[in-house]
Amino acid sequence: MNRNWKENYCVATYRLHDEKADFEKKAQGIAVGLTVGSWTDLPQAQKAEMEKHLGQVVSVEVHDQPGKERYADIRIAYPDLNFSRDIPALLVTAFGKLSMDGRIKLLDLEVSDRFREGFNGPKFGLDGVRKLLGIPDRPLLMSIFKSVIGHNLPELREQFYQQALGGVDLIKDDEILFENPLTPLEKRVRACMEAAAEAEQKTGQKLLYAVNLTGPTSQLKQQAAKAIEAGANALLFNVLAYGFDVLHELAQDPDISVPIAAHPAVAGALYPSPHYGIAAPLLLGKLMRLAGADLVLFPSPYGSVVMPKEENMAIKEALLQPDEHLKRCFPVPSAGIHPGLVPWILRDFGTEVIVNAGGGVHGHPGGAAAGGRAFRQAIDAVLRGEDLTQAAASQPELAEAIRLWGAKQ
Amino acid sequence: MNRNWKENYCVATYRLHDEKADFEKKAQGIAVGLTVGSWTDLPQAQKAEMEKHLGQVVSVEVHDQPGKERYADIRIAYPDLNFSRDIPALLVTAFGKLSMDGRIKLLDLEVSDRFREGFNGPKFGLDGVRKLLGIPDRPLLMSIFKSVIGHNLPELREQFYQQALGGVDLIKDDEILFENPLTPLEKRVRACMEAAAEAEQKTGQKLLYAVNLTGPTSQLKQQAAKAIEAGANALLFNVLAYGFDVLHELAQDPDISVPIAAHPAVAGALYPSPHYGIAAPLLLGKLMRLAGADLVLFPSPYGSVVMPKEENMAIKEALLQPDEHLKRCFPVPSAGIHPGLVPWILRDFGTEVIVNAGGGVHGHPGGAAAGGRAFRQAIDAVLRGEDLTQAAASQPELAEAIRLWGAKQ
Repeated sequence: MNRNWKENYCVATYRLHDEKADFEKKAQGIAVGLTVGSWTDLPQAQKAEMEKHLGQVVSVEVHDQPGKERYADIRIAYPDLNFSRDIPALLVTAFGKLSMDGRIKLLDLEVSDRFREGFNGPKFGLDGVRKLLGIPDRPLLMSIFKSVIGHNLPELREQFYQQALGGVDLIKDDEILFENPLTPLEKRVRACMEAAAEAEQKTGQKLLYAVNLTGPTSQLKQQAAKAIEAGANALLFNVLAYGFDVLHELAQDPDISVPIAAHPAVAGALYPSPHYGIAAPLLLGKLMRLAGADLVLFPSPYGSVVMPKEENMAIKEALLQPDEHLKRCFPVPSAGIHPGLVPWILRDFGTEVIVNAGGGVHGHPGGAAAGGRAFRQAIDAVLRGEDLTQAAASQPELAEAIRLWGAKQ
Repeated sequence: MNRNWKENYCVATYRLHDEKADFEKKAQGIAVGLTVGSWTDLPQAQKAEMEKHLGQVVSVEVHDQPGKERYADIRIAYPDLNFSRDIPALLVTAFGKLSMDGRIKLLDLEVSDRFREGFNGPKFGLDGVRKLLGIPDRPLLMSIFKSVIGHNLPELREQFYQQALGGVDLIKDDEILFENPLTPLEKRVRACMEAAAEAEQKTGQKLLYAVNLTGPTSQLKQQAAKAIEAGANALLFNVLAYGFDVLHELAQDPDISVPIAAHPAVAGALYPSPHYGIAAPLLLGKLMRLAGADLVLFPSPYGSVVMPKEENMAIKEALLQPDEHLKRCFPVPSAGIHPGLVPWILRDFGTEVIVNAGGGVHGHPGGAAAGGRAFRQAIDAVLRGEDLTQAAASQPELAEAIRLWGAKQ
């Protein structure tokens, strides 16, 4: 078949592992079973009426090599007429009951043009974030608080200030910092934004602070409004603990006038298995962009929490590839990043990336400000085409970082 | 350690697969890393202050047998002081970043008494549902529409009526039926509740109709209100496509005055892998009950979508075990159920179960009404201690069902 599915079908790609299944038959079963329910028994007149609701098998690609697990990649087109234009409806249709039907993983979803009309995507996107910061082209640098739980406001403010002094472009809350009596949302935002202004006096540099948006689902908009009112200029959100539709509604709300950074917490329950779940490029790439994340954090292939390189590049693609309707999202490969890894990150991601570090900033022997500077020096060196060890000769912060963590070249 | 964690710690149990990891060290790393961030470097005075925020290793149980994958079950206690009393905060704390850290599966969460104070659990629960139906002790029977997409209101109404005539106690929407022009929510509810009343004239039996609650998250309460206003006496909800917190907020809303049936759509993306994800008894048992589902559907170990028996029994336990604060939920093992399986279901689940069938009702040679009757006959036979084939001798509907599908004894 060579139809233009994009117009009014959403096409799902699945990988099924099975040693002996008739994958063609299985595909037909899915296409019928998850749409009109039954087909061959229908009277001819009813078939004509029902055909627009019938799922279609787009392709079945069987991989059967000796010594390897037998599997098939199956693509099914679901008429968008069958479901409402929201992500829960799409997921329930394409991977609701089916997710429980043996060894099956959802690899991709290509939504129809009509379905996508329900989505505006990121409000700011990569270019919007750059504009807010006034940095048109260099890779950005984000840092994460070191430890936050049990710390009071002056301690957090000081941590923030030290990070800001190092020249980072964004600082994010730890995703496990919830509403608490020591550092409640509004006071935290006020204290940190004050520290940001103070640091700006010295660095001359703007900064976004992504405050963790938490609490009951129905109160998130109100919490976001409070944070913004208190001066927050970005939000951090644990999308998968709440659901994509919650992100979508937050991103679409005109009152939420700041970028949203999507944190991948809980995503590891869904993507790593080869046999089950939802593939990372769909989960942390395409669906995050569709739902409206401006920045997306995900495990990098370099650091402590690793993900295969290929998957990482596919997430990048999903976030950055040109799209008529959806702005690009900033990719933020994360976890275990130190300045010595900057050449690798920039080689793989180019300049449209946010280098994100926690321990790699705070663990610097000279403190967090020196840690930030080491990262900026590494980024600038790579942009100049310089070798890190060469650049380190004249830049003591970078030199110290490389001494501690090394530099993969 | 022999502390009473229940007071103010939430204890998470993980299974980690790794051929050579030092699991003791790994456990310590989790307990510190996911709470206070660092511990050994802290000055003594700060340790005293921070100890109440520090995670604790409860136990580490290493399984290392020749020829088998090496794994450990690790239990970590998280101070509930560290997070707010909502399921997203609990999940992000206990399985946020950690979910992405190698081969790790979340097996269980035991919440603290203080955390649980934020939850009322099911509004009706098993006993409440029984009361609504006026059936104090027999296993209930639920049926599912056969095919719904593309069908108009009279067709759906007729399907409903035929099911109701067979003596089913509950009828549920298909989970893939969304808001649509042919059978919009309010009209569908009115038509089906009319059919229910008509059937009641003949059967003398009450019936709950669980209408699929769909659409944007922020409009779900309003949709539920519309359905209830139109006469709906139960709701079906795709919990995992929306998030547990959304179910929690729906269940807590006093205006939602009907039971909520939780559908497991998308759950298969999370529970089946031995290495990753969230175990079914936690996902479809404990968390569903905590969040407030009155009935929970899950794949049975008998039918077409199978789940290991042991896991199924653990879900049952989680839904039914006595709890001072949370009402019991009705277990609804589903998929591929026919009358011949009723003895098995009742043997494993006892009488506190809802027998749920789609094809096993509609596929009956005598039609859906006969299909329902065959199920009721099977249930009654088992309750009388009779063999199904024996009972079938005097009950033609049951006899036909057994002729078609067989009867495992």
